[in-house]
Amino acid sequence: MSKKLTPIQRAYLAGFLDGDGSIYVRLKPNKTYKYDFQIAPYIVLFQSKKVEKLFQQICSLIDFGYLRERKDGILEYTINKQQDIIDFLQLVKPYLILKKEHAELMIEILLTKQSVKDKKDFIQLAQMIDRFRDLNYSKKRKRHNLTP
Amino acid sequence: MSKKLTPIQRAYLAGFLDGDGSIYVRLKPNKTYKYDFQIAPYIVLFQSKKVEKLFQQICSLIDFGYLRERKDGILEYTINKQQDIIDFLQLVKPYLILKKEHAELMIEILLTKQSVKDKKDFIQLAQMIDRFRDLNYSKKRKRHNLTP
Repeated sequence: MSKKLTPIQRAYLAGFLDGDGSIYVRLKPNKTYKYDFQIAPYIVLFQSKKVEKLFQQICSLIDFGYLRERKDGILEYTINKQQDIIDFLQLVKPYLILKKEHAELMIEILLTKQSVKDKKDFIQLAQMIDRFRDLNYSKKRKRHNLTP
Repeated sequence: MSKKLTPIQRAYLAGFLDGDGSIYVRLKPNKTYKYDFQIAPYIVLFQSKKVEKLFQQICSLIDFGYLRERKDGILEYTINKQQDIIDFLQLVKPYLILKKEHAELMIEILLTKQSVKDKKDFIQLAQMIDRFRDLNYSKKRKRHNLTP
């Protein structure tokens, strides 16, 4: 983040994230990772290309992620670096309403990930990610099974 | 509005409205109105029923409109009284980014409406509503034709 955000800006961004944004994390099967799964966290904001300039104003406030245009003309602003996600969520968390629980659990997941030492720790982390999924899709619960 | 909103709350609501909300006004053909058209302005916020309690927190901050559940399970919070729309937009306008122009034009339309004296004034008002449509759908322009 290139500049300090005021409380007013943080409250605005919290409202925008609550209204428009998506916070999620998933375990992607990936054999090149130590425990065969990669932890992939994202914060994504979406807008129509029609408001590109104004949307860029909002993105430049955040100043963490990157903006890309999808084939269907929707602009997607993504934050996917783990430390950036932690830093951004810490800034907006006090003002979030709808996604406060997501933000808290995401921060907990990313901090826990930094201290994973063995498979047992990793399984605990995977369970936290399952809890995160439950926040988003309370009725489509699908558990990860890491043990054979 | 039952209580005064702090600047932080107004900034949050501006972000939420920019991200999730819809501001629009349309001319509805209606023969019972003096100029055969009714001016129907709305502010609508949408959320999934899954977050009903938290969404109610946001709606109770606003405290102007009414909440209803659509058949598809989406919650819709609507402000449709003209003075409420003006009052609410005045509160959030300084903090809006994406929808600032919509808010300014909507306030202008509703204030102009209060001083319509004849058909000429009404046609001017209809032209402002066309400008509003242009803000939302810049490529699907469809003009109202009030004169035979």
